[in-house]
Amino acid sequence: MKARARGADARTVSELGEFALIARLQQELGDQQEALAVQAAAGSRLLLGIGDDAAVWVSAAPAQIATTDTLVEGIHFPPGVPWSDLGWKSLAINVSDIVAMGGTPEYALITLALPVELQVEDALEFYRGLAEAGRRFGVVVAGGDVVRAPQFIVTIALSGRPSIADDGTPLLLRRDGAHAGDAVAVSGHLGDSAGGLRLLTSGVDCPPETASHLRRAHLRPEPPVELGRAAVAAGLRCAIDISDGLAQDLGHVCELSGLEAVVHADRLPVSDHLRRAFPDEATALAATGGEDYELLLAGPVAALEGLRGQVKTPLTMIGEMVADTTHRPRFLDSRGREIALSEAGWDHFASSGRRR
Amino acid sequence: MKARARGADARTVSELGEFALIARLQQELGDQQEALAVQAAAGSRLLLGIGDDAAVWVSAAPAQIATTDTLVEGIHFPPGVPWSDLGWKSLAINVSDIVAMGGTPEYALITLALPVELQVEDALEFYRGLAEAGRRFGVVVAGGDVVRAPQFIVTIALSGRPSIADDGTPLLLRRDGAHAGDAVAVSGHLGDSAGGLRLLTSGVDCPPETASHLRRAHLRPEPPVELGRAAVAAGLRCAIDISDGLAQDLGHVCELSGLEAVVHADRLPVSDHLRRAFPDEATALAATGGEDYELLLAGPVAALEGLRGQVKTPLTMIGEMVADTTHRPRFLDSRGREIALSEAGWDHFASSGRRR
Repeated sequence: MKARARGADARTVSELGEFALIARLQQELGDQQEALAVQAAAGSRLLLGIGDDAAVWVSAAPAQIATTDTLVEGIHFPPGVPWSDLGWKSLAINVSDIVAMGGTPEYALITLALPVELQVEDALEFYRGLAEAGRRFGVVVAGGDVVRAPQFIVTIALSGRPSIADDGTPLLLRRDGAHAGDAVAVSGHLGDSAGGLRLLTSGVDCPPETASHLRRAHLRPEPPVELGRAAVAAGLRCAIDISDGLAQDLGHVCELSGLEAVVHADRLPVSDHLRRAFPDEATALAATGGEDYELLLAGPVAALEGLRGQVKTPLTMIGEMVADTTHRPRFLDSRGREIALSEAGWDHFASSGRRR
Repeated sequence: MKARARGADARTVSELGEFALIARLQQELGDQQEALAVQAAAGSRLLLGIGDDAAVWVSAAPAQIATTDTLVEGIHFPPGVPWSDLGWKSLAINVSDIVAMGGTPEYALITLALPVELQVEDALEFYRGLAEAGRRFGVVVAGGDVVRAPQFIVTIALSGRPSIADDGTPLLLRRDGAHAGDAVAVSGHLGDSAGGLRLLTSGVDCPPETASHLRRAHLRPEPPVELGRAAVAAGLRCAIDISDGLAQDLGHVCELSGLEAVVHADRLPVSDHLRRAFPDEATALAATGGEDYELLLAGPVAALEGLRGQVKTPLTMIGEMVADTTHRPRFLDSRGREIALSEAGWDHFASSGRRR
């Protein structure tokens, strides 16, 4: 697909062989000193990494958070995506789940299912992006598995630690932790990733810096680790990461908390780039586009306002949780009329106001 | 492939849909009371299972063991294997890695990559076997992921706790923990699983109870959890699970401990069933056949003898670790002549004795 760097390995993974490939992948990780230092500073220590039957670490907390997420070639990413971006993203989407519990990511196990004809250089490039994300998020790769498969699949299991109360209880951000009267806030911008995916799969005419911003939002998501921890410290107890789109993920919070959510569509944080590239659909993409990997928080307005003053990540109040029996989110336009969301996206012409 | 039970779901997984499938799989797991009780008795408690962004548990130990292992259709198992056996095995092979560290398995995350045309009933059958293994090994399924893929793949990430010394240090069985003069012992019988695989892929004439024993060894491995823990308590510090075959796995111990191993081939624990089905190859299958999921231990003879008196699992002394520069295992016949092992298996006619 692209020109190889001089001196790059021109072999396929089957030509190199399993054990040699694992050794090369490990080289790309390096000694992981940055991430190990981040963990050590918090009192968490890797005792045994790659090379034994299992990884072992000494925890800094009496509780563990664990999640796993998978990317399948052809289903979760379009062809032509740079391998290093895939490596980054495969770890970042797992970090997002730990963040959404208010935790700190620690150790990852990486399972690569590789087609025999995959270029060694592509696998190495994948690991370069993964290692970059490891440095960025303080995650140590502690082990994994490499298997053959007809299609590239990466599965990461990521473990982390929660914040702990003085009495030893883990403090968590849960999907079922919202209360009637809570405000709903989201981090960063929404919809940029969905816009980036459109740019990657079908050309859209827009300025290069806009295209680059949107593509980056899709390929290099940066879940707000500091925000998750700060939210817990600020007394918040309800969050979800926005991975399937705001409407769907807020729907989970509604269902599990037994509440309705009212979202003011005109308050959704939409970037100038997204507006420029998709002027007619920006708000719709923000409401239903997936893979933002931003954080949705529900809690008392005062706690959210206080939190906003403490963190660099922008935090936008978009609505509130209300007692109701439907247990779903409702999106209102600036005149208070409900906007119908379809599975296919945002249906601007089917708002209940106009239907009348 | 086989007749469906009356009332069984005749739909494919894509007809049922992702969320409904996950709900059905969860039903098959049930409330997991047995495994939860096993964990609770040791002071380990699941706080949040399936349904939030991540699973959370309170640990009974200040350290964690974590491993991941994958089974790919067509590569790690032949067609026609019962789905419930696959479910059992996918968990058991991960349990084996925790056992080989001397630990106790606790919580599992299950990732299923499913072809859209897979029958719902097959996925449920897989989960029934998985749930059975969970009960047997005290493992709680805490979460996971279901994705689409062209081929059935299951990846499990399993976490466990090590035994802890009075000073809080984790006590582990490591691959690099052998010393010159240590005896080498293995649990159970070796080669039965490789024999079972042969029966599954090519018919071999043998009594039905023999066929059933060997097939079961291949499809329903039972890693010796109690033995791993007892070994740590007996002061042992070196082990590996036998997954790639005795020769290869003992090779890892040699390499990482910087020693040679001498194995007396006539001492290998071979079952009567394996001898009956494969009279000429039984010892070769025991030496090089894979997927036994038995435990290999290296340590002082006295400690191993003492351990043998304490556990129900048979433990057989098969050789010793010796100082040497080759860092590999050597297999000797009853007359002390070296037997050459080839990658393809056991080459009975290339022993160094006969070559002379």
